[in-house]
Amino acid sequence: MKRLCVAIQGERGSFSEEAARKMLGQRAETMHCPSFPAVFEALRRKKVECAVVPIENTLAGPVYENYDLLLEHGFWVEAEFNLRIEHMLIAPRGVKLKDLREVYSHPVALAQCRKFFARHKSLRPVAAYDTAGSVKNLVEQSRRDAAGIAGRAAAAAYGARILARNMEDDRGNFTRFLLVRSAQRTRPNANKTSIVFATHNIPGSLFRCLAVFALRDVSLTKIESRPWRGRPWEYRFYVDFLGRPDTTPGQQALGHLSELTSFLRVLGCYPNSRLQP
Amino acid sequence: MKRLCVAIQGERGSFSEEAARKMLGQRAETMHCPSFPAVFEALRRKKVECAVVPIENTLAGPVYENYDLLLEHGFWVEAEFNLRIEHMLIAPRGVKLKDLREVYSHPVALAQCRKFFARHKSLRPVAAYDTAGSVKNLVEQSRRDAAGIAGRAAAAAYGARILARNMEDDRGNFTRFLLVRSAQRTRPNANKTSIVFATHNIPGSLFRCLAVFALRDVSLTKIESRPWRGRPWEYRFYVDFLGRPDTTPGQQALGHLSELTSFLRVLGCYPNSRLQP
Repeated sequence: MKRLCVAIQGERGSFSEEAARKMLGQRAETMHCPSFPAVFEALRRKKVECAVVPIENTLAGPVYENYDLLLEHGFWVEAEFNLRIEHMLIAPRGVKLKDLREVYSHPVALAQCRKFFARHKSLRPVAAYDTAGSVKNLVEQSRRDAAGIAGRAAAAAYGARILARNMEDDRGNFTRFLLVRSAQRTRPNANKTSIVFATHNIPGSLFRCLAVFALRDVSLTKIESRPWRGRPWEYRFYVDFLGRPDTTPGQQALGHLSELTSFLRVLGCYPNSRLQP
Repeated sequence: MKRLCVAIQGERGSFSEEAARKMLGQRAETMHCPSFPAVFEALRRKKVECAVVPIENTLAGPVYENYDLLLEHGFWVEAEFNLRIEHMLIAPRGVKLKDLREVYSHPVALAQCRKFFARHKSLRPVAAYDTAGSVKNLVEQSRRDAAGIAGRAAAAAYGARILARNMEDDRGNFTRFLLVRSAQRTRPNANKTSIVFATHNIPGSLFRCLAVFALRDVSLTKIESRPWRGRPWEYRFYVDFLGRPDTTPGQQALGHLSELTSFLRVLGCYPNSRLQP
Protein backbone atom coordinates (compact mmCIF):
# COMPACT_ATOMS: atom_id res chain seq x y z
CA MET A 1 0.00 0.00 0.00
CA LYS A 2 1.46 3.34 -1.08
CA ARG A 3 1.84 5.91 1.66
CA LEU A 4 0.23 9.32 1.22
CA CYS A 5 2.79 12.13 0.92
CA VAL A 6 1.99 15.59 2.33
CA ALA A 7 4.04 18.82 2.16
CA ILE A 8 4.30 20.98 5.29
CA GLN A 9 6.38 23.96 6.37
CA GLY A 10 8.92 23.48 9.15
CA GLU A 11 10.98 20.79 10.82
CA ARG A 12 9.98 17.31 12.00
CA GLY A 13 7.83 17.53 15.13
CA SER A 14 6.29 20.90 14.20
CA PHE A 15 2.69 21.93 14.85
CA SER A 16 2.09 21.61 11.07
CA GLU A 17 3.19 17.97 11.25
CA GLU A 18 0.92 17.38 14.25
CA ALA A 19 -2.03 18.85 12.31
CA ALA A 20 -1.16 16.80 9.19
CA ARG A 21 -1.16 13.56 11.24
CA LYS A 22 -4.48 14.44 12.87
CA MET A 23 -5.98 14.95 9.40
CA LEU A 24 -4.24 12.16 7.45
CA GLY A 25 -3.20 9.57 10.05
CA GLN A 26 0.17 8.48 11.43
CA ARG A 27 1.25 6.65 8.27
CA ALA A 28 1.32 9.76 6.07
CA GLU A 29 4.78 10.65 4.83
CA THR A 30 5.73 14.29 5.42
CA MET A 31 7.88 16.44 3.12
CA HIS A 32 9.43 19.27 5.17
CA CYS A 33 9.74 22.55 3.26
CA PRO A 34 11.62 25.68 4.41
CA SER A 35 8.82 28.14 3.51
CA PHE A 36 5.14 28.33 2.53
CA PRO A 37 5.93 29.16 -1.13
CA ALA A 38 8.08 25.98 -1.18
CA VAL A 39 5.11 23.95 0.17
CA PHE A 40 2.83 25.18 -2.62
CA GLU A 41 5.58 24.69 -5.22
CA ALA A 42 6.00 21.03 -4.12
CA LEU A 43 2.26 20.50 -4.63
CA ARG A 44 2.28 22.27 -8.01
CA ARG A 45 5.15 20.06 -9.21
CA LYS A 46 3.24 16.98 -8.00
CA LYS A 47 6.05 15.95 -5.62
CA VAL A 48 3.31 15.43 -3.01
CA GLU A 49 -0.39 14.60 -3.17
CA CYS A 50 -1.48 17.33 -0.76
CA ALA A 51 -0.30 20.04 1.62
CA VAL A 52 -1.28 21.09 5.15
CA VAL A 53 -0.82 24.79 6.01
CA PRO A 54 -1.90 27.09 8.86
CA ILE A 55 -4.45 29.73 7.82
CA GLU A 56 -5.23 31.52 11.10
CA ASN A 57 -4.45 31.51 14.81
CA THR A 58 -6.89 32.64 17.49
CA LEU A 59 -4.25 34.92 19.06
CA ALA A 60 -1.94 35.84 16.18
CA GLY A 61 -4.60 36.26 13.46
CA PRO A 62 -4.79 35.16 9.80
CA VAL A 63 -1.81 33.93 7.76
CA TYR A 64 -2.30 36.19 4.72
CA GLU A 65 0.63 34.57 2.90
CA ASN A 66 -1.22 31.25 2.62
CA TYR A 67 -4.45 32.93 1.48
CA ASP A 68 -2.43 34.59 -1.28
CA LEU A 69 -0.68 31.34 -2.27
CA LEU A 70 -4.01 29.47 -2.38
CA LEU A 71 -5.41 32.07 -4.76
CA GLU A 72 -2.24 32.30 -6.86
CA HIS A 73 -2.03 28.53 -7.45
CA GLY A 74 -5.79 27.95 -7.74
CA PHE A 75 -5.64 25.00 -5.33
CA TRP A 76 -8.63 23.52 -3.47
CA VAL A 77 -9.31 23.27 0.28
CA GLU A 78 -10.57 19.75 1.12
CA ALA A 79 -10.56 19.81 4.93
CA GLU A 80 -9.83 21.96 7.98
CA PHE A 81 -8.59 21.15 11.49
CA ASN A 82 -8.34 23.31 14.63
CA LEU A 83 -5.20 22.35 16.55
CA ARG A 84 -4.85 23.45 20.17
CA ILE A 85 -1.38 25.01 20.52
CA GLU A 86 0.20 23.62 23.69
CA HIS A 87 3.75 24.77 24.43
CA MET A 88 6.07 22.27 26.14
CA LEU A 89 9.52 22.84 27.63
CA ILE A 90 11.71 20.20 25.92
CA ALA A 91 15.36 19.36 26.62
CA PRO A 92 17.85 16.64 25.60
CA ARG A 93 17.56 13.46 27.72
CA GLY A 94 19.08 13.70 31.20
CA VAL A 95 18.88 17.50 31.37
CA LYS A 96 16.88 18.73 34.38
CA LEU A 97 14.93 21.95 34.92
CA LYS A 98 17.52 23.17 37.46
CA ASP A 99 20.33 22.72 34.88
CA LEU A 100 18.76 25.19 32.47
CA ARG A 101 20.10 28.66 31.71
CA GLU A 102 18.61 29.37 28.28
CA VAL A 103 15.28 28.60 26.58
CA TYR A 104 15.11 28.71 22.76
CA SER A 105 12.04 29.12 20.55
CA HIS A 106 10.38 31.19 17.85
CA PRO A 107 9.79 34.73 19.22
CA VAL A 108 6.00 34.33 18.88
CA ALA A 109 6.09 31.18 21.06
CA LEU A 110 8.40 32.88 23.61
CA ALA A 111 5.93 35.79 23.82
CA GLN A 112 3.07 33.33 24.48
CA CYS A 113 4.87 31.98 27.59
CA ARG A 114 5.51 35.26 29.47
CA LYS A 115 4.10 34.00 32.78
CA PHE A 116 6.55 31.06 32.75
CA PHE A 117 9.54 33.39 32.31
CA ALA A 118 8.18 35.69 35.02
CA ARG A 119 8.16 32.69 37.40
CA HIS A 120 11.65 31.50 36.30
CA LYS A 121 13.72 34.65 36.22
CA SER A 122 17.03 32.79 35.91
CA LEU A 123 16.00 31.42 32.49
CA ARG A 124 16.98 33.59 29.54
CA PRO A 125 14.63 33.43 26.49
CA VAL A 126 16.58 33.19 23.20
CA ALA A 127 15.04 33.63 19.73
CA ALA A 128 15.22 30.72 17.26
CA TYR A 129 13.90 30.32 13.68
CA ASP A 130 11.42 27.57 14.59
CA THR A 131 9.77 25.91 17.62
CA ALA A 132 10.57 22.26 16.77
CA GLY A 133 13.83 23.40 15.12
CA SER A 134 15.05 24.78 18.46
CA VAL A 135 14.68 21.30 20.04
CA LYS A 136 16.40 19.70 17.02
CA ASN A 137 19.42 22.03 17.38
CA LEU A 138 19.79 21.48 21.14
CA VAL A 139 19.72 17.70 20.71
CA GLU A 140 22.25 17.83 17.84
CA GLN A 141 24.55 19.99 19.97
CA SER A 142 23.98 17.82 23.11
CA ARG A 143 23.38 21.00 25.10
CA ARG A 144 23.12 20.39 28.88
CA ASP A 145 22.04 23.92 29.90
CA ALA A 146 19.24 24.71 27.46
CA ALA A 147 15.71 23.69 26.46
CA GLY A 148 13.36 24.58 23.62
CA ILE A 149 9.67 25.50 23.58
CA ALA A 150 7.69 23.45 21.06
CA GLY A 151 4.74 21.10 20.70
CA ARG A 152 4.85 17.61 22.26
CA ALA A 153 5.52 16.09 18.83
CA ALA A 154 8.99 17.67 18.86
CA ALA A 155 9.98 15.64 21.95
CA ALA A 156 9.04 12.40 20.19
CA ALA A 157 10.69 13.44 16.91
CA TYR A 158 14.10 14.11 18.48
CA GLY A 159 14.07 11.69 21.43
CA ALA A 160 14.01 14.56 23.91
CA ARG A 161 12.19 14.95 27.24
CA ILE A 162 9.31 17.20 28.28
CA LEU A 163 10.29 19.13 31.44
CA ALA A 164 7.15 21.29 31.72
CA ARG A 165 3.73 21.14 30.05
CA ASN A 166 1.24 23.77 28.93
CA MET A 167 3.48 26.77 29.39
CA GLU A 168 1.20 28.93 27.21
CA ASP A 169 -0.32 31.95 28.99
CA ASP A 170 -3.60 31.56 27.13
CA ARG A 171 -5.36 28.21 26.75
CA GLY A 172 -7.53 29.63 23.97
CA ASN A 173 -4.58 29.30 21.57
CA PHE A 174 -5.74 27.38 18.46
CA THR A 175 -4.36 27.29 14.93
CA ARG A 176 -6.68 26.43 12.05
CA PHE A 177 -4.96 24.26 9.40
CA LEU A 178 -6.18 23.56 5.87
CA LEU A 179 -5.65 20.41 3.80
CA VAL A 180 -5.00 21.58 0.25
CA ARG A 181 -5.00 19.67 -3.06
CA SER A 182 -4.25 20.80 -6.59
CA ALA A 183 -7.49 19.28 -7.95
CA GLN A 184 -11.03 19.84 -6.70
CA ARG A 185 -12.30 17.03 -4.48
CA THR A 186 -15.26 17.55 -2.15
CA ARG A 187 -16.07 15.10 0.64
CA PRO A 188 -19.69 13.87 0.91
CA ASN A 189 -20.13 15.50 4.34
CA ALA A 190 -18.67 18.88 3.27
CA ASN A 191 -20.91 21.66 4.63
CA LYS A 192 -18.74 24.78 4.77
CA THR A 193 -17.37 26.89 1.90
CA SER A 194 -14.54 29.44 1.77
CA ILE A 195 -14.68 32.20 -0.82
CA VAL A 196 -12.83 35.39 -1.67
CA PHE A 197 -14.41 38.28 -3.56
CA ALA A 198 -13.72 41.92 -4.40
CA THR A 199 -15.97 44.96 -4.62
CA HIS A 200 -15.47 48.65 -5.28
CA ASN A 201 -15.52 50.62 -2.06
CA ILE A 202 -18.85 52.38 -2.46
CA PRO A 203 -21.08 52.79 0.60
CA GLY A 204 -23.25 49.73 1.00
CA SER A 205 -21.39 47.47 -1.45
CA LEU A 206 -20.43 44.94 1.24
CA PHE A 207 -23.95 45.19 2.64
CA ARG A 208 -25.42 44.18 -0.74
CA CYS A 209 -22.92 41.29 -0.98
CA LEU A 210 -23.93 39.98 2.45
CA ALA A 211 -27.60 40.27 1.48
CA VAL A 212 -27.15 37.35 -0.94
CA PHE A 213 -26.52 35.15 2.12
CA ALA A 214 -28.92 36.77 4.61
CA LEU A 215 -31.86 36.68 2.17
CA ARG A 216 -31.37 32.90 1.91
CA ASP A 217 -30.76 32.28 5.65
CA VAL A 218 -27.16 31.19 4.97
CA SER A 219 -24.90 31.61 8.06
CA LEU A 220 -21.46 33.17 7.81
CA THR A 221 -18.75 31.79 10.14
CA LYS A 222 -16.05 34.30 9.19
CA ILE A 223 -15.57 37.59 7.37
CA GLU A 224 -12.47 39.64 6.84
CA SER A 225 -11.60 42.62 4.67
CA ARG A 226 -8.23 43.47 3.22
CA PRO A 227 -7.21 46.39 1.01
CA TRP A 228 -6.37 45.11 -2.48
CA ARG A 229 -2.78 46.11 -3.05
CA GLY A 230 -2.23 47.98 -6.31
CA ARG A 231 -5.97 48.56 -6.68
CA PRO A 232 -6.79 51.66 -4.65
CA TRP A 233 -10.33 51.86 -3.21
CA GLU A 234 -10.91 48.17 -3.85
CA TYR A 235 -11.20 45.63 -1.09
CA ARG A 236 -10.97 41.86 -1.03
CA PHE A 237 -13.25 40.00 1.36
CA TYR A 238 -12.65 36.52 2.75
CA VAL A 239 -15.90 34.83 3.76
CA ASP A 240 -16.69 31.34 5.09
CA PHE A 241 -20.34 30.25 5.01
CA LEU A 242 -22.25 27.14 6.04
CA GLY A 243 -23.39 25.62 2.76
CA ARG A 244 -22.01 24.19 -0.49
CA PRO A 245 -21.34 25.81 -3.86
CA ASP A 246 -23.10 22.94 -5.69
CA THR A 247 -26.44 22.77 -3.83
CA THR A 248 -29.28 25.08 -2.78
CA PRO A 249 -29.09 27.65 -1.21
CA GLY A 250 -25.27 28.14 -1.40
CA GLN A 251 -25.29 27.78 -5.18
CA GLN A 252 -27.94 30.49 -5.64
CA ALA A 253 -26.17 32.80 -3.17
CA LEU A 254 -22.91 32.52 -5.15
CA GLY A 255 -24.75 33.13 -8.44
CA HIS A 256 -26.29 36.26 -6.96
CA LEU A 257 -22.93 37.34 -5.49
CA SER A 258 -21.25 37.10 -8.90
CA GLU A 259 -23.62 39.85 -10.13
CA LEU A 260 -22.33 42.23 -7.42
CA THR A 261 -18.57 41.60 -7.40
CA SER A 262 -15.62 42.41 -9.67
CA PHE A 263 -13.90 39.16 -8.64
CA LEU A 264 -15.16 35.94 -7.02
CA ARG A 265 -13.39 32.64 -6.35
CA VAL A 266 -14.40 29.53 -4.36
CA LEU A 267 -11.33 28.38 -2.40
CA GLY A 268 -12.84 25.08 -1.25
CA CYS A 269 -15.71 23.21 0.38
CA TYR A 270 -15.11 20.96 3.39
CA PRO A 271 -16.63 19.54 6.59
CA ASN A 272 -16.95 22.22 9.31
CA SER A 273 -14.54 21.58 12.19
CA ARG A 274 -15.72 24.02 14.82
CA LEU A 275 -13.34 25.56 17.30
CA GLN A 276 -14.06 23.96 20.67
CA PRO A 277 -14.66 26.67 23.28
CA MET B 1 9.14 73.16 27.53
CA LYS B 2 8.35 69.67 28.77
CA ARG B 3 8.96 66.86 26.31
CA LEU B 4 6.13 64.49 25.48
CA CYS B 5 6.79 60.94 26.68
CA VAL B 6 5.48 57.97 24.65
CA ALA B 7 5.65 54.24 25.45
CA ILE B 8 6.54 51.82 22.64
CA GLN B 9 7.45 48.14 22.41
CA GLY B 10 10.98 47.24 21.37
CA GLU B 11 14.48 48.63 21.27
CA ARG B 12 15.75 52.05 20.17
CA GLY B 13 15.57 52.37 16.38
CA SER B 14 12.55 50.06 16.02
CA PHE B 15 9.70 50.54 13.53
CA SER B 16 7.50 51.50 16.51
CA GLU B 17 9.91 54.33 17.34
CA GLU B 18 9.92 55.44 13.69
CA ALA B 19 6.09 55.53 13.72
CA ALA B 20 6.03 57.39 17.06
CA ARG B 21 8.38 60.08 15.69
CA LYS B 22 6.28 60.46 12.53
CA MET B 23 3.20 61.00 14.69
CA LEU B 24 4.68 63.04 17.57
CA GLY B 25 7.83 64.66 16.15
CA GLN B 26 11.54 64.13 16.77
CA ARG B 27 11.53 65.72 20.24
CA ALA B 28 9.21 63.11 21.80
CA GLU B 29 10.89 61.05 24.50
CA THR B 30 10.41 57.29 24.04
CA MET B 31 10.03 54.73 26.83
CA HIS B 32 11.08 51.31 25.51
CA CYS B 33 9.03 48.41 26.91
CA PRO B 34 9.77 44.68 26.50
CA SER B 35 6.19 43.69 25.59
CA PHE B 36 2.81 45.13 24.56
CA PRO B 37 1.25 44.48 28.01
CA ALA B 38 4.14 46.49 29.50
CA VAL B 39 3.39 49.38 27.09
CA PHE B 40 -0.27 49.52 28.20
CA GLU B 41 0.74 49.14 31.85
CA ALA B 42 3.09 52.15 31.54
CA LEU B 43 0.20 54.21 30.18
CA ARG B 44 -2.19 52.99 32.88
CA ARG B 45 0.29 53.97 35.60
CA LYS B 46 0.68 57.41 33.98
CA LYS B 47 4.43 56.91 33.47
CA VAL B 48 3.89 58.20 29.92
CA GLU B 49 1.33 60.48 28.29
CA CYS B 50 0.56 58.17 25.37
CA ALA B 51 1.56 54.97 23.60
CA VAL B 52 2.16 54.01 19.95
CA VAL B 53 1.44 50.38 19.01
CA PRO B 54 1.11 48.41 15.75
CA ILE B 55 -2.44 47.19 15.06
CA GLU B 56 -2.11 45.50 11.64
CA ASN B 57 0.34 44.76 8.85
CA THR B 58 -0.65 44.45 5.20
CA LEU B 59 1.22 41.12 4.90
CA ALA B 60 1.16 39.65 8.42
CA GLY B 61 -2.40 40.68 9.37
CA PRO B 62 -3.91 42.15 12.54
CA VAL B 63 -2.16 42.29 15.93
CA TYR B 64 -4.98 40.80 18.03
CA GLU B 65 -2.99 41.26 21.26
CA ASN B 66 -3.19 45.05 20.96
CA TYR B 67 -6.91 44.99 20.13
CA ASP B 68 -7.41 42.97 23.32
CA LEU B 69 -5.26 45.31 25.41
CA LEU B 70 -7.10 48.39 24.06
CA LEU B 71 -10.41 46.86 25.11
CA GLU B 72 -9.15 45.60 28.46
CA HIS B 73 -7.75 48.99 29.50
CA GLY B 74 -10.54 51.08 27.94
CA PHE B 75 -8.02 53.43 26.29
CA TRP B 76 -8.77 55.77 23.37
CA VAL B 77 -7.30 55.86 19.85
CA GLU B 78 -6.42 59.45 18.93
CA ALA B 79 -4.52 58.96 15.66
CA GLU B 80 -3.30 56.38 13.15
CA PHE B 81 -0.26 56.22 10.85
CA ASN B 82 0.61 53.80 8.04
CA LEU B 83 4.37 53.18 8.07
CA ARG B 84 6.02 51.63 5.01
CA ILE B 85 8.19 48.75 6.27
CA GLU B 86 11.56 49.01 4.51
CA HIS B 87 14.16 46.44 5.51
CA MET B 88 17.81 47.54 5.49
CA LEU B 89 20.96 45.46 5.88
CA ILE B 90 22.84 47.14 8.74
CA ALA B 91 26.33 46.32 10.07
CA PRO B 92 28.82 47.87 12.50
CA ARG B 93 30.97 50.62 10.92
CA GLY B 94 33.78 49.39 8.69
CA VAL B 95 32.16 46.01 7.97
CA LYS B 96 31.64 45.36 4.23
CA LEU B 97 29.11 43.20 2.43
CA LYS B 98 31.87 40.75 1.40
CA ASP B 99 32.89 40.29 5.07
CA LEU B 100 29.47 38.98 6.06
CA ARG B 101 28.67 35.36 6.97
CA GLU B 102 25.53 35.72 9.10
CA VAL B 103 22.46 38.00 8.98
CA TYR B 104 20.38 38.40 12.16
CA SER B 105 16.78 39.55 12.47
CA HIS B 106 13.30 38.67 13.71
CA PRO B 107 12.08 35.54 11.81
CA VAL B 108 9.19 37.50 10.26
CA ALA B 109 11.64 40.06 8.81
CA LEU B 110 13.98 37.29 7.58
CA ALA B 111 11.01 35.62 5.82
CA GLN B 112 10.17 38.93 4.12
CA CYS B 113 13.65 39.08 2.50
CA ARG B 114 13.74 35.64 0.83
CA LYS B 115 14.83 36.98 -2.56
CA PHE B 116 17.88 38.64 -0.97
CA PHE B 117 19.00 35.35 0.63
CA ALA B 118 18.37 33.51 -2.66
CA ARG B 119 20.77 35.96 -4.36
CA HIS B 120 23.36 35.75 -1.53
CA LYS B 121 23.62 32.05 -0.79
CA SER B 122 26.75 32.41 1.35
CA LEU B 123 24.81 34.46 3.94
CA ARG B 124 23.19 32.44 6.71
CA PRO B 125 19.95 33.90 8.16
CA VAL B 126 19.88 33.69 11.98
CA ALA B 127 16.80 34.34 14.15
CA ALA B 128 16.87 37.18 16.69
CA TYR B 129 14.26 38.48 19.13
CA ASP B 130 13.93 41.87 17.45
CA THR B 131 14.87 43.71 14.23
CA ALA B 132 16.55 46.78 15.79
CA GLY B 133 17.74 44.59 18.69
CA SER B 134 19.79 42.48 16.28
CA VAL B 135 21.72 45.59 15.15
CA LYS B 136 22.18 46.68 18.79
CA ASN B 137 23.70 43.30 19.72
CA LEU B 138 26.10 43.21 16.74
CA VAL B 139 27.38 46.72 17.50
CA GLU B 140 27.83 45.90 21.21
CA GLN B 141 29.76 42.75 20.29
CA SER B 142 31.78 44.58 17.56
CA ARG B 143 31.02 41.72 15.17
CA ARG B 144 32.97 41.94 11.88
CA ASP B 145 31.20 39.08 10.06
CA ALA B 146 27.52 39.77 10.66
CA ALA B 147 24.75 42.26 9.88
CA GLY B 148 21.17 42.75 11.03
CA ILE B 149 17.96 43.43 9.10
CA ALA B 150 16.03 46.39 10.53
CA GLY B 151 14.55 49.78 9.62
CA ARG B 152 16.84 52.71 8.77
CA ALA B 153 16.26 54.21 12.22
CA ALA B 154 18.28 51.34 13.74
CA ALA B 155 21.40 52.42 11.81
CA ALA B 156 21.14 55.94 13.23
CA ALA B 157 20.33 54.70 16.76
CA TYR B 158 23.44 52.51 17.03
CA GLY B 159 25.88 54.39 14.76
CA ALA B 160 25.92 51.51 12.27
CA ARG B 161 26.04 51.52 8.46
CA ILE B 162 23.42 50.55 5.87
CA LEU B 163 24.97 48.05 3.42
CA ALA B 164 21.83 47.33 1.35
CA ARG B 165 18.46 49.07 1.10
CA ASN B 166 14.92 47.84 0.52
CA MET B 167 15.62 44.15 0.88
CA GLU B 168 11.91 43.39 1.35
CA ASP B 169 10.41 41.08 -1.29
CA ASP B 170 7.12 42.97 -1.28
CA ARG B 171 6.97 46.78 -1.45
CA GLY B 172 3.34 46.67 -0.30
CA ASN B 173 4.53 46.06 3.25
CA PHE B 174 2.87 48.61 5.57
CA THR B 175 2.19 48.55 9.29
CA ARG B 176 -0.67 50.60 10.71
CA PHE B 177 0.20 52.16 14.08
CA LEU B 178 -2.21 53.70 16.60
CA LEU B 179 -1.58 56.57 19.00
CA VAL B 180 -3.35 55.64 22.24
CA ARG B 181 -4.22 57.74 25.30
CA SER B 182 -5.89 56.81 28.56
CA ALA B 183 -8.42 59.64 28.28
CA GLN B 184 -10.72 60.44 25.38
CA ARG B 185 -9.43 63.27 23.18
CA THR B 186 -10.76 63.72 19.65
CA ARG B 187 -8.98 65.95 17.14
CA PRO B 188 -11.11 68.52 15.25
CA ASN B 189 -10.39 66.84 11.88
CA ALA B 190 -11.19 63.30 13.11
CA ASN B 191 -13.34 61.55 10.50
CA LYS B 192 -12.88 57.81 11.11
CA THR B 193 -14.12 55.66 14.01
CA SER B 194 -13.06 52.21 15.23
CA ILE B 195 -15.60 50.07 17.05
CA VAL B 196 -15.89 46.50 18.33
CA PHE B 197 -19.22 44.75 18.82
CA ALA B 198 -20.59 41.26 19.45
CA THR B 199 -23.65 39.44 18.15
CA HIS B 200 -25.10 35.99 18.53
CA ASN B 201 -24.33 33.87 15.49
CA ILE B 202 -27.80 33.68 13.98
CA PRO B 203 -28.16 33.88 10.20
CA GLY B 204 -28.37 37.49 9.14
CA SER B 205 -27.25 39.05 12.45
CA LEU B 206 -24.15 40.63 10.91
CA PHE B 207 -26.24 41.69 7.92
CA ARG B 208 -28.62 43.59 10.20
CA CYS B 209 -25.66 45.20 11.99
CA LEU B 210 -24.18 46.42 8.70
CA ALA B 211 -27.60 47.76 7.67
CA VAL B 212 -27.26 50.49 10.32
CA PHE B 213 -24.36 51.89 8.27
CA ALA B 214 -25.61 51.11 4.75
CA LEU B 215 -29.05 52.67 5.39
CA ARG B 216 -27.25 55.92 6.30
CA ASP B 217 -24.67 55.81 3.46
CA VAL B 218 -21.82 55.42 5.96
CA SER B 219 -18.72 53.76 4.39
CA LEU B 220 -16.84 50.97 6.14
CA THR B 221 -13.05 50.86 5.67
CA LYS B 222 -12.47 47.59 7.53
CA ILE B 223 -14.36 44.63 8.93
CA GLU B 224 -13.08 41.56 10.71
CA SER B 225 -14.71 38.75 12.66
CA ARG B 226 -13.21 36.75 15.49
CA PRO B 227 -14.73 33.94 17.54
CA TRP B 228 -15.31 35.16 21.10
CA ARG B 229 -13.26 32.84 23.29
CA GLY B 230 -15.23 31.28 26.11
CA ARG B 231 -18.52 32.32 24.50
CA PRO B 232 -19.39 29.61 21.97
CA TRP B 233 -21.44 30.76 18.95
CA GLU B 234 -20.71 34.38 19.66
CA TYR B 235 -18.51 36.53 17.44
CA ARG B 236 -16.78 39.80 17.95
CA PHE B 237 -16.57 42.18 14.98
CA TYR B 238 -14.01 44.92 14.49
CA VAL B 239 -15.29 47.65 12.19
CA ASP B 240 -13.81 50.99 11.07
CA PHE B 241 -16.20 53.48 9.45
CA LEU B 242 -15.88 56.96 7.97
CA GLY B 243 -17.77 59.16 10.42
CA ARG B 244 -17.77 60.29 14.06
CA PRO B 245 -19.61 58.91 17.08
CA ASP B 246 -20.69 62.45 18.11
CA THR B 247 -22.24 63.75 14.88
CA THR B 248 -24.82 62.70 12.28
CA PRO B 249 -24.95 60.09 10.73
CA GLY B 250 -22.33 58.11 12.75
CA GLN B 251 -24.09 58.90 16.03
CA GLN B 252 -27.44 57.56 14.77
CA ALA B 253 -25.78 54.47 13.26
CA LEU B 254 -24.19 53.62 16.63
CA GLY B 255 -27.48 54.19 18.46
CA HIS B 256 -29.19 51.81 16.05
CA LEU B 257 -26.32 49.30 16.34
CA SER B 258 -26.65 49.21 20.14
CA GLU B 259 -30.19 47.82 19.68
CA LEU B 260 -28.80 44.84 17.73
CA THR B 261 -25.66 43.88 19.66
CA SER B 262 -24.89 42.20 22.98
CA PHE B 263 -21.73 44.32 23.33
CA LEU B 264 -20.58 47.56 21.70
CA ARG B 265 -17.56 49.77 22.39
CA VAL B 266 -16.07 52.75 20.54
CA LEU B 267 -12.26 52.34 20.52
CA GLY B 268 -11.52 55.81 19.18
CA CYS B 269 -12.13 58.50 16.57
CA TYR B 270 -9.25 59.95 14.55
CA PRO B 271 -8.23 61.49 11.21
CA ASN B 272 -8.20 58.89 8.41
CA SER B 273 -4.65 58.17 7.20
CA ARG B 274 -5.21 56.10 4.07
CA LEU B 275 -2.77 53.47 2.94
CA GLN B 276 -1.00 54.83 -0.13
CA PRO B 277 -1.34 52.28 -2.96
